[in-house]
Amino acid sequence: MVKLEMKSTLEIYKQKTRKSAKLFTKSKKFHINGVHHNIRFFEPYPFVTKSSNGKFLVDVDSNKYVDYWMGHWSLILGHTRNEIKKSAIQQIKNGWMHGTSNQNAIKLSEKISKVVPVAEKIRYVTTGTEATMYSVRLARAITGKKIIAKVDGGWHGYTTDLLKTVNYPFNESESKGLTDEQHIISIPYNNIQKSLQILKAVKKDLAGIVIEPVLGGGGAIPATKDYLKAIQEFTKSNNSLFILDEIVTGFRFRYGCLYNTMKLDPDIVTLGKIVGGGFPIGVICGKEEIMENANTSTHTKIKRAYIGGGTFSANPLSMIAGETNLETIRKIGNSLYEKINGLGKETKQMLAKIFDDDVIITGKGSLFMTHFPKIGISKITNAVDASKCNITKLHDYHFEMIANDGIFFLPGKLGAISDSHTKNDIKLMKSSTEKFVSKSKK
Amino acid sequence: MVKLEMKSTLEIYKQKTRKSAKLFTKSKKFHINGVHHNIRFFEPYPFVTKSSNGKFLVDVDSNKYVDYWMGHWSLILGHTRNEIKKSAIQQIKNGWMHGTSNQNAIKLSEKISKVVPVAEKIRYVTTGTEATMYSVRLARAITGKKIIAKVDGGWHGYTTDLLKTVNYPFNESESKGLTDEQHIISIPYNNIQKSLQILKAVKKDLAGIVIEPVLGGGGAIPATKDYLKAIQEFTKSNNSLFILDEIVTGFRFRYGCLYNTMKLDPDIVTLGKIVGGGFPIGVICGKEEIMENANTSTHTKIKRAYIGGGTFSANPLSMIAGETNLETIRKIGNSLYEKINGLGKETKQMLAKIFDDDVIITGKGSLFMTHFPKIGISKITNAVDASKCNITKLHDYHFEMIANDGIFFLPGKLGAISDSHTKNDIKLMKSSTEKFVSKSKK
Repeated sequence: MVKLEMKSTLEIYKQKTRKSAKLFTKSKKFHINGVHHNIRFFEPYPFVTKSSNGKFLVDVDSNKYVDYWMGHWSLILGHTRNEIKKSAIQQIKNGWMHGTSNQNAIKLSEKISKVVPVAEKIRYVTTGTEATMYSVRLARAITGKKIIAKVDGGWHGYTTDLLKTVNYPFNESESKGLTDEQHIISIPYNNIQKSLQILKAVKKDLAGIVIEPVLGGGGAIPATKDYLKAIQEFTKSNNSLFILDEIVTGFRFRYGCLYNTMKLDPDIVTLGKIVGGGFPIGVICGKEEIMENANTSTHTKIKRAYIGGGTFSANPLSMIAGETNLETIRKIGNSLYEKINGLGKETKQMLAKIFDDDVIITGKGSLFMTHFPKIGISKITNAVDASKCNITKLHDYHFEMIANDGIFFLPGKLGAISDSHTKNDIKLMKSSTEKFVSKSKK
Repeated sequence: MVKLEMKSTLEIYKQKTRKSAKLFTKSKKFHINGVHHNIRFFEPYPFVTKSSNGKFLVDVDSNKYVDYWMGHWSLILGHTRNEIKKSAIQQIKNGWMHGTSNQNAIKLSEKISKVVPVAEKIRYVTTGTEATMYSVRLARAITGKKIIAKVDGGWHGYTTDLLKTVNYPFNESESKGLTDEQHIISIPYNNIQKSLQILKAVKKDLAGIVIEPVLGGGGAIPATKDYLKAIQEFTKSNNSLFILDEIVTGFRFRYGCLYNTMKLDPDIVTLGKIVGGGFPIGVICGKEEIMENANTSTHTKIKRAYIGGGTFSANPLSMIAGETNLETIRKIGNSLYEKINGLGKETKQMLAKIFDDDVIITGKGSLFMTHFPKIGISKITNAVDASKCNITKLHDYHFEMIANDGIFFLPGKLGAISDSHTKNDIKLMKSSTEKFVSKSKK
């Protein structure tokens, strides 16, 4: 019965996305699996977006979707926000690619360094992948050690230096063609005892530990304060570097990073997404003594960590978009976070109620994710738990919402609430979810 | 005497760039060495750019510079070209970050694939660094081998996978903190015999060879057709991949890649810079049988090459800017290349004449670079030759032009002529160069 209903949802989707279907067929002719980021593909084919504004994505068939994917969670103020639009257009008129130093980078750094204490020195790159790659290189350069630890399900971009234990099953390589996996080790998230046991075994060659304070791609799972404290303590006592990847969490829950709220003291913090306002950016923030190792004016070739190159690094457009985004957030003030965290809480409560005991909802603040646990899973504290849930059902749920009610989650991924969302969107999601639950029970 | 004159040039620069000096001091407070790309720094401090238009960079003190750096050579039509400006502004109004599939990527691919035969399948990433990293991963995945060969002085971005023999001295590591240098080997550019000798010694584990058909960062040095043919032949006979890095050369000399003109048959070609119109882009173009190894819908985790992720991959703004740039070039037609290649030729002839026999000018088409050879160097066919030239003198020459005549080369780097340059700019460079020569002789 469920299958039949699913089929009709598929038909509904196909009927309303005919132009997308044609275009995506064309895209598959030119592009591997039709996409440029593997996760952007979903069956039968992803719709093709024409424009985006506020909370909406509009596809080429003019369907509107209330968007919770929000540009890979980078658009905390919603799509095509007016303030950013204006300053970006102004910058385009003044030139988008000087290829030289520009004032916009200084303006953005003034804002970031004011609220991110570890950002004694900042280097901008173009992507989060680059930011984590360079952080790892810095850790290895400074310590003279080689091993980097990450957590199961930690996602730091496709850099070769951190491509391990990203997707289930975690004991399999993430890709063919990797040559240096032995210098990446993986520890179980939120499990202090087992993590320390693994770390101790490699402590002599442990350069650093990279960790997201809330797993993003790994399933919207917050780290406990105790876990992060224990990991930090180990790195300090072992002269390894403690690297927090706040690309997802930076400026997501408050005007600043998440780590400050836990009184943590990381050596390096990576930022991205929100601090670029949706324009290409990656940021390495670090303590001065660490970052100075990358100074090519004071360090000779064999003594430096060579990081940060790139044609588009600190381009004036990304810099001003990021600065305007932070300035807009700052001006709105804490009410922004109260609003979106509040909507997040309500959404989670609403979902918990409708799904009854059938789901576990993870997340923090404006980030949330619904998991359909299989028998035996009663809580989700790491990506292994998350991967044991019914992922097909989550995809079905997300697809039903896309097809029937114009609500867009990237199927299987966590949702992010933005300033453009309202209580009405919770109502819409509620009714859509109720339909799904009722169908599932048939 | 030269020293005194140089000092006065320094004073001139300092006097006219007072606002830049203040801002750069501030930049140093926030940023390592004040910059985000190491090569953007030069002594005493780089000016800070306020805007760019046509052939000009304008700094915060309102000095204008005729620019030959041209956004890391990405702006073949000049800064802030009207056609691109218009389409970028339109895209910003429609949303700069959908986070989903968009039609602009298809439009750009239609253009690229029409003239780049190897682009049977295309994947867009955000930077050239990412494009070369993924190409290497593909080569290793497909061949099951590990070693990648590059040439001395080859520059493919800061990816850990290719960070070797970039800067002189080539026998030293490029950075502390690298762990897997043993899987990168380096061969001497344009030396068939020695290159083949090195390659043969590792042929059993040789996954691929990455090579720029014109060394960019390495000194504007074209590869000979014979050299590229010999390398290609070796890869084919050895079942290794032949990867051409055309990030600098793609659409630089003709509407298409350079490799076609030499009847080469690479397996993968990387693009960037020009095909993005100055917006963040990296492109992996490859034969279908190769690229399909990255298809996550048809290949399970352990059988695929995992490439191409990234929040900003194929973002609609970079895609439409690139498409508009190519469309504008296509509309201008071959006269664009005739013009800029012609200006390049004239510039090289002019420089050769003024410098008499004191310099060697390398380059191709609209790319050119002046080298001051030390005794014993009579030709420059690779980066080792280039690194043996008087690099300090080149910096002085470039700095003199910046300070005295408002002509900007990134000190020490090659120049690129764009559609916005004219014969008058050759005259300006001529008179500036004559002053430098005359000073040097005092």
